[in-house]
Amino acid sequence: MRLAELSERSGVSTATIKYYLREGLLPPGHQINATTAEYDEEHLRRLRLVRAMIQVGRVPVAKVREVLGHVDDDSLGRSIRLGAAMWALPQVPEPDEDDEYVQTAQQEVSALLDRLGWHNAKQLAPVSPAYRSLVVAVAALRRLGYDFGYELLTPYAELMYRTAVLDLDNLETYSSEEERIEFAILGAIINEPALQALHRLAQEEETTRRYGFE
Amino acid sequence: MRLAELSERSGVSTATIKYYLREGLLPPGHQINATTAEYDEEHLRRLRLVRAMIQVGRVPVAKVREVLGHVDDDSLGRSIRLGAAMWALPQVPEPDEDDEYVQTAQQEVSALLDRLGWHNAKQLAPVSPAYRSLVVAVAALRRLGYDFGYELLTPYAELMYRTAVLDLDNLETYSSEEERIEFAILGAIINEPALQALHRLAQEEETTRRYGFE
Repeated sequence: MRLAELSERSGVSTATIKYYLREGLLPPGHQINATTAEYDEEHLRRLRLVRAMIQVGRVPVAKVREVLGHVDDDSLGRSIRLGAAMWALPQVPEPDEDDEYVQTAQQEVSALLDRLGWHNAKQLAPVSPAYRSLVVAVAALRRLGYDFGYELLTPYAELMYRTAVLDLDNLETYSSEEERIEFAILGAIINEPALQALHRLAQEEETTRRYGFE
Repeated sequence: MRLAELSERSGVSTATIKYYLREGLLPPGHQINATTAEYDEEHLRRLRLVRAMIQVGRVPVAKVREVLGHVDDDSLGRSIRLGAAMWALPQVPEPDEDDEYVQTAQQEVSALLDRLGWHNAKQLAPVSPAYRSLVVAVAALRRLGYDFGYELLTPYAELMYRTAVLDLDNLETYSSEEERIEFAILGAIINEPALQALHRLAQEEETTRRYGFE
């Protein structure tokens, strides 16, 4: 397809597509002659992913380029490509290692992973943004005087594990490796807000079931 | 306790406490004489909540005042107080009602709620930020060419329902109504990032279990 059709099918303006091409977020089309290039379904798919990251996820252009670099590096294994792409995304605050609440939270999260038998996640902990996020959240709750130890977290973790199994099952319905990795990135950007919304809807339902509408 | 002790026990500076008092985010202490006021455990609890909203949740001061107004209005029923406080919090984008993807997404989310038997949530839908968020997310995925209908969402919704039951069970371990509502607000601010972090840790665990570390 030509640029005009790529624009029409993606809903992205030709000016924006040209900007993405210049920035290297979209691979060049197949040059037919000096002024015309052809684009294919892979361009369309990549364009949608870039659009989702920038417009829905508000990911900066440089970060999009970094994430795509991992997606396209097929010298890496599947877990590494999935992980590298996902890990490039969230802006995770660094926990203050000298803070006593952070230290306690690290011990608690570590005990939680042991108890759950999440040995792989424990092994990845030193480099994992998800681990850091959990430590920061648990430390913040402790600082506010709330006990958020592993007794309380364990049933949540078990439900989240079942959620992750669903995620991976859905991922595996895509036949190509690129599509799977792209879908994982979209998942981090769009599914998580959807999951949070479902959680809040479920809270509304359960609250009104227990206490009525008033 | 005096202001100095309130500051020490909460970890919030006396200057900041005075600012919260001026802004009406903290009720005045019990005046002992012209220059000295006494504060109690309720002040401490409220101060922690305000601190969490402002520092962890980055909620603007005017919004904090609005949320606390709902928390303190005991003429309202429990669901309304919980709902009003929670609903004041998230900044939810308004879906564009003229967009065809939004219209399809509304039908899909509505069909999902029917199928799940979440009749209360459906009744609340016209005023619920959670419902709007889900519509926006489903529409965004559809626009990108991903089918995210209720077949795919149903098992997620069921897991989120079980998560909400855990939330409410935990809430009910607090004996006073004020504490419950405060904990619900903290939940929206701090538990949701914790839940997201647990979800990502579970994804790491399951990805590496399925595909190894490479």
